[in-house]
Amino acid sequence: MAGNRGVAYMGPGKVEVQETDYPKLELQDGPGVHPDNIGRKCNHGVILKVATTNICGSDQHMVRGRTTAPQHLVLGHEILGEVVEVGSDVEFIKVGDLCSVPFNIACGRCRNCKEGKTGICLTVNPARPGAAYGYVDMGGWVGGQAEYVMVPYADFNLLRFPDKDKALSKLTDLTMLSDIFPTGYHGAVSAGVKPGSTVYIAGAGPVGLAAAAGAQLLGAAVVIVADLVPERLAQARSFGCETVDVSKGDPKDQILQILGVPEVDCGVDAVGFEARGHGEGAAQEAPATVLNSLMEITAAGGALGIPGLYVTGDPGGIDEAAKVGSLSLSLGTGWAKSLSFVTGQCPVMKYNYGLMQAILNDKVQIAKAVNATVISLDEAPQGYADFDQGAAKKFVIDPHGMVAA
Amino acid sequence: MAGNRGVAYMGPGKVEVQETDYPKLELQDGPGVHPDNIGRKCNHGVILKVATTNICGSDQHMVRGRTTAPQHLVLGHEILGEVVEVGSDVEFIKVGDLCSVPFNIACGRCRNCKEGKTGICLTVNPARPGAAYGYVDMGGWVGGQAEYVMVPYADFNLLRFPDKDKALSKLTDLTMLSDIFPTGYHGAVSAGVKPGSTVYIAGAGPVGLAAAAGAQLLGAAVVIVADLVPERLAQARSFGCETVDVSKGDPKDQILQILGVPEVDCGVDAVGFEARGHGEGAAQEAPATVLNSLMEITAAGGALGIPGLYVTGDPGGIDEAAKVGSLSLSLGTGWAKSLSFVTGQCPVMKYNYGLMQAILNDKVQIAKAVNATVISLDEAPQGYADFDQGAAKKFVIDPHGMVAA
Amino acid sequence: MAGNRGVAYMGPGKVEVQETDYPKLELQDGPGVHPDNIGRKCNHGVILKVATTNICGSDQHMVRGRTTAPQHLVLGHEILGEVVEVGSDVEFIKVGDLCSVPFNIACGRCRNCKEGKTGICLTVNPARPGAAYGYVDMGGWVGGQAEYVMVPYADFNLLRFPDKDKALSKLTDLTMLSDIFPTGYHGAVSAGVKPGSTVYIAGAGPVGLAAAAGAQLLGAAVVIVADLVPERLAQARSFGCETVDVSKGDPKDQILQILGVPEVDCGVDAVGFEARGHGEGAAQEAPATVLNSLMEITAAGGALGIPGLYVTGDPGGIDEAAKVGSLSLSLGTGWAKSLSFVTGQCPVMKYNYGLMQAILNDKVQIAKAVNATVISLDEAPQGYADFDQGAAKKFVIDPHGMVAA
Amino acid sequence: MAGNRGVAYMGPGKVEVQETDYPKLELQDGPGVHPDNIGRKCNHGVILKVATTNICGSDQHMVRGRTTAPQHLVLGHEILGEVVEVGSDVEFIKVGDLCSVPFNIACGRCRNCKEGKTGICLTVNPARPGAAYGYVDMGGWVGGQAEYVMVPYADFNLLRFPDKDKALSKLTDLTMLSDIFPTGYHGAVSAGVKPGSTVYIAGAGPVGLAAAAGAQLLGAAVVIVADLVPERLAQARSFGCETVDVSKGDPKDQILQILGVPEVDCGVDAVGFEARGHGEGAAQEAPATVLNSLMEITAAGGALGIPGLYVTGDPGGIDEAAKVGSLSLSLGTGWAKSLSFVTGQCPVMKYNYGLMQAILNDKVQIAKAVNATVISLDEAPQGYADFDQGAAKKFVIDPHGMVAA
Repeated sequence: MAGNRGVAYMGPGKVEVQETDYPKLELQDGPGVHPDNIGRKCNHGVILKVATTNICGSDQHMVRGRTTAPQHLVLGHEILGEVVEVGSDVEFIKVGDLCSVPFNIACGRCRNCKEGKTGICLTVNPARPGAAYGYVDMGGWVGGQAEYVMVPYADFNLLRFPDKDKALSKLTDLTMLSDIFPTGYHGAVSAGVKPGSTVYIAGAGPVGLAAAAGAQLLGAAVVIVADLVPERLAQARSFGCETVDVSKGDPKDQILQILGVPEVDCGVDAVGFEARGHGEGAAQEAPATVLNSLMEITAAGGALGIPGLYVTGDPGGIDEAAKVGSLSLSLGTGWAKSLSFVTGQCPVMKYNYGLMQAILNDKVQIAKAVNATVISLDEAPQGYADFDQGAAKKFVIDPHGMVAA
Repeated sequence: MAGNRGVAYMGPGKVEVQETDYPKLELQDGPGVHPDNIGRKCNHGVILKVATTNICGSDQHMVRGRTTAPQHLVLGHEILGEVVEVGSDVEFIKVGDLCSVPFNIACGRCRNCKEGKTGICLTVNPARPGAAYGYVDMGGWVGGQAEYVMVPYADFNLLRFPDKDKALSKLTDLTMLSDIFPTGYHGAVSAGVKPGSTVYIAGAGPVGLAAAAGAQLLGAAVVIVADLVPERLAQARSFGCETVDVSKGDPKDQILQILGVPEVDCGVDAVGFEARGHGEGAAQEAPATVLNSLMEITAAGGALGIPGLYVTGDPGGIDEAAKVGSLSLSLGTGWAKSLSFVTGQCPVMKYNYGLMQAILNDKVQIAKAVNATVISLDEAPQGYADFDQGAAKKFVIDPHGMVAA
Repeated sequence: MAGNRGVAYMGPGKVEVQETDYPKLELQDGPGVHPDNIGRKCNHGVILKVATTNICGSDQHMVRGRTTAPQHLVLGHEILGEVVEVGSDVEFIKVGDLCSVPFNIACGRCRNCKEGKTGICLTVNPARPGAAYGYVDMGGWVGGQAEYVMVPYADFNLLRFPDKDKALSKLTDLTMLSDIFPTGYHGAVSAGVKPGSTVYIAGAGPVGLAAAAGAQLLGAAVVIVADLVPERLAQARSFGCETVDVSKGDPKDQILQILGVPEVDCGVDAVGFEARGHGEGAAQEAPATVLNSLMEITAAGGALGIPGLYVTGDPGGIDEAAKVGSLSLSLGTGWAKSLSFVTGQCPVMKYNYGLMQAILNDKVQIAKAVNATVISLDEAPQGYADFDQGAAKKFVIDPHGMVAA
Repeated sequence: MAGNRGVAYMGPGKVEVQETDYPKLELQDGPGVHPDNIGRKCNHGVILKVATTNICGSDQHMVRGRTTAPQHLVLGHEILGEVVEVGSDVEFIKVGDLCSVPFNIACGRCRNCKEGKTGICLTVNPARPGAAYGYVDMGGWVGGQAEYVMVPYADFNLLRFPDKDKALSKLTDLTMLSDIFPTGYHGAVSAGVKPGSTVYIAGAGPVGLAAAAGAQLLGAAVVIVADLVPERLAQARSFGCETVDVSKGDPKDQILQILGVPEVDCGVDAVGFEARGHGEGAAQEAPATVLNSLMEITAAGGALGIPGLYVTGDPGGIDEAAKVGSLSLSLGTGWAKSLSFVTGQCPVMKYNYGLMQAILNDKVQIAKAVNATVISLDEAPQGYADFDQGAAKKFVIDPHGMVAA
């Protein structure tokens, strides 16, 4: 039995690469594992040798100490790997298969999974609907920023690449299928993007950039990405997006310059609860800024896709309201315009097959769009630090040197 | 040329029946008419002899002084009438036709109208998308709580009843097609109600009751209506709904009693910004109560239909936030459950034909559901007063005694 | 180990109750079992004690000798039962659970199942997408018109009734959830039925009647059912449908009498390839009659739901074209009216939960609508014979006397 | 009053440029005008100076003598022009506006128009739902392959280009908005094309090529276009499509070569009733070939978009069945795979705004895809002749030399 190493959360601002247990086909006790999940048999699971695993903006919420994540939690929910062992109830996935792992863990057997709502599976998390690998309050499933990881309900969860060699040659694109690309794309889909749409995406971090690439794939006429970090805006422009610098004042005026009208058909919130103010207030957190701004900017009859995370409690919130997840929203603005709002985790399985096909047939360059940057497992802590500083990069951990090869 | 009489807003708490101008096929200057709309030619319009016109809960917002409605504004946007004059550009509607008037005025020629979004027509209100009869900030079109009213773009806007005699025999049902029935139904549709759904409707006023009747027509398995006025709850029970008395504590517990689980598939907000607290706080306004409660109550993956009105400014708001339409929403609760939110005016035209067919073929008894109560034009001020006291009635004004006949 | 008895096809016009093997959690060799399915392990399966199992119109195609069904094939794909044994990989279904079995067998793990297309599961039938119990060319899974039956992928396939006692009191309704009710309902949904629709359903056999009940549940304004058997038309009228007797001439004229217009919004084909002509030709098979008639009858812009079975080969076809499944369709008629056509097996899992809720909350009386008639296992051959004669009944086999109890 | 000249149908194989009447805001008597439409007032109409007007494959059906088109019928339903006169009921369109004209004439006031079904408007054609300019049995509205043309219900029908100068610089792209681009795109949309789809398009004429460009805009992973004319296949390859030469044998084998599997997700019929056989039978008409082939090729669960025209009568049909529009379809093949079929004219208005935005923002090069070839009005007869010979060109008539300018 091989050993294992993984990236562990050690406290606010601190992650470390540690020796960890080699995964079993059973959920063991450990940091953050829900008591009712301890000892859960996973003959439906497989062990993956991790080929790539990405650092996600939502990992940052934990690492910044904005959650109740426990010490020693092994992080990582964006995983692509090769199957090295299969459980006795696995029928279609075989040893040697190279697969993408949707970050949402789903049983494939409950009412929500049957309806394709795999982001809110009813059985994998005893605490509430929805689970993920290596994430606080998401069931306690061990994270995949490691050499090896266990994936339950493998026949249901895994997306196998039809041509392994071709897949190995596109790892930095395909690794985005586990979360960020579908998540950004879901934001665009939820916002109603279709051929000819004008789209405003708040946030030029990896999710925002993925939403932009997704909007382009959906045929959008103009994609505008907004942020206050110049490097991130430059990254957005590098693949054909227009940009708005929210530190330079009201987005409406900048949109008017770009489009000739001060509003867009579709709005995407790729920021979430750690939003900062616009204009001169940009230095300070203002959790409702993005949503209120999107209601101003989105044309009557439009929709807001909200992949950006909003929480029910935020110990690091800027004031008492923020600490309990209360947002001060001008809902009347949206109501007068008959806007719709779509929230929540992306149900990755709804989109990953189609996006894989788009990648394999060169219809989208997602690795370039998000500026995929490959690092070793040992470089992960530095990757977290750089990402936290606003680096316009998406860090892809390569534990076994498979990308390089 | 005949004279005219209409119900005018005279200040907070005060409405009067006044002599008014007989309508012309041109929008005249008057209280609340947007300057750019003055003198607008309406050869595409018709003059209706009003058969029935209902008092709406949203009229109450004005009459209670919660808006900037001008004095002498003739009220009324729920109208059914007989055509007595047609403009030169009217091609398909004929004198003598009995028709329902959608409360949203729409040109049928702009991009939004072409997409069926008649609640946010781009041309009928110079101030912003969307217009209505007799309503503040909605373009200045004269209200229909009167003997006669002008309806522009008549070929597009009017729904003609195919059999006039049959229609005359069902006036108290058909009069609900102009607003309240489609509006409640839109709430149910937006909340995703379908055969087998469990539904929670906040508010047992006419819109809530119409949403309940709509949910039943859509095949809902269980419809639960919540309010704090016992008469309104009794009214809901009279046609097969379950009820929750929010003054008696947390709706979740009461839902658990009814369904065996503490949540529903679909949530409808038929209350809006004048919401009151639940439990012991029920005596006091708490504008975000209903939405926060619906996020608690609605199962993961569900949707919230929000026909209840939210505003961008409320002079009578309970605090500074409320005065500018800011709501303190626990959006994280909804986000964790992947909820969707659908806001805005109902686009009546999307639904009124089908609902008319359901009424004419006795598939729904909407007049009974909302407790339609016929009064004369002169009784309108008393109707406003009774309705404001929470009467479990929907007042239908019958200016020419046509219902009685 | 208990024994087993089941209804076997013995040749054209002949079915018998025979001693059969008690099911194992493995697919054994037997009549019609696809070679690649022999020996398939089913630790994901359960053994059901059959509470009810219905005779289906599609069984008749086999029994009439219109297919290549092999002798000794145990029939039956409409099954409701109690779990008496669970495989080692079954996690959520427990011994004692009372469940409905969707007639489409689905793995819950392939691309189609993940998209909810359980009627065309890619893995359960080596010959082509889609499988069923006890049906020719559908993978060889043993039928359920028996005392016991094996259900594979039980966690995914089974719909458990939340309250066993309540379910036992409504068995004749709930037994319709395995096929006929969702199938008819799917026809209505596919035809675009919604509140206020006018609907024409060709065929007053059980599927047609179920489509009619489904259309009513969906809020249809008028449901018209057509057939040439007077008893079946009477059955349709018994729950509020209008009827057309196709032996009496052109349906268009009869529709005009009923609706005042000669066309409907939505059309459902609940007949399929064994259709007979209309008017004086009603005595003779004319496979394209129903579809050509529906194109005439359905208003421009409408849709045709086609739950009625069409085949690729019919040894008993009336002419050479029919024998190879070729239909002479006036597609231009449909094209000029922009009609849509939806074909194929109903994906039961998409609907059965909602329809169960509607049944349990008394929103629909499906057993009455289809005239459920309970018989013993030994009476099954007589049931087949009566049904073949056009009896306006839906036969429900009760192998263990559980309905009676 | 200026004169006018237009392209008239003079009999099978013959078109001529003739002196014609300058249009009035009233529908005059003339070849093919329905009696009930003669003298119809069109104060809602405008006179357009035609900037571009294209020859359509469906014009060819008439010119080949496959319809009952009357002599002297002025052809042309693909029109883009500048407004030179507006009727008294026109409110939003102004003299000088440059606009695209949807080929389907629609009133904007009937039930179908209100639902966006402008291809089957109930009022513009006394004979049946749906009308078009210059087309047999489509209401008698005068065609636009002329210097000037009248467009009724102009506020509703016309799509105005927001920036006239920019539009003038893209005329050969924008001229495709009146029919062919939306029509091909509608085929792709109806077939369910979305990001990652594999698509097979039967027919590499202009509609097929437009469907291919539309599928690419929708994000398709692989677009395969089939035909038997080498030049047309080369044209398809010129913008990134794969191709199948149906004269070389079974499309299935060629698809297998391209995709590694012998089927596609989505099928589009861009051929219609004048289809020819595949393989060795390619020389001969075989009206059902394309549809039967698409049922074979399209994966279970897929959909067929059918923009290709099917008729109810074809005097030139290859046999008696074809003469009455009867097709011999293997519907069982489609039924077994749960396929859907979407037929009918494209409702252009549903798509033209978005496609215009895509063109104006350089997201699609439709003129290049269909090989737009500009000719003068006098060259129109030669254009018809070349197109009939299978020229891989889309002819754009430029009556006033505006494209050149």
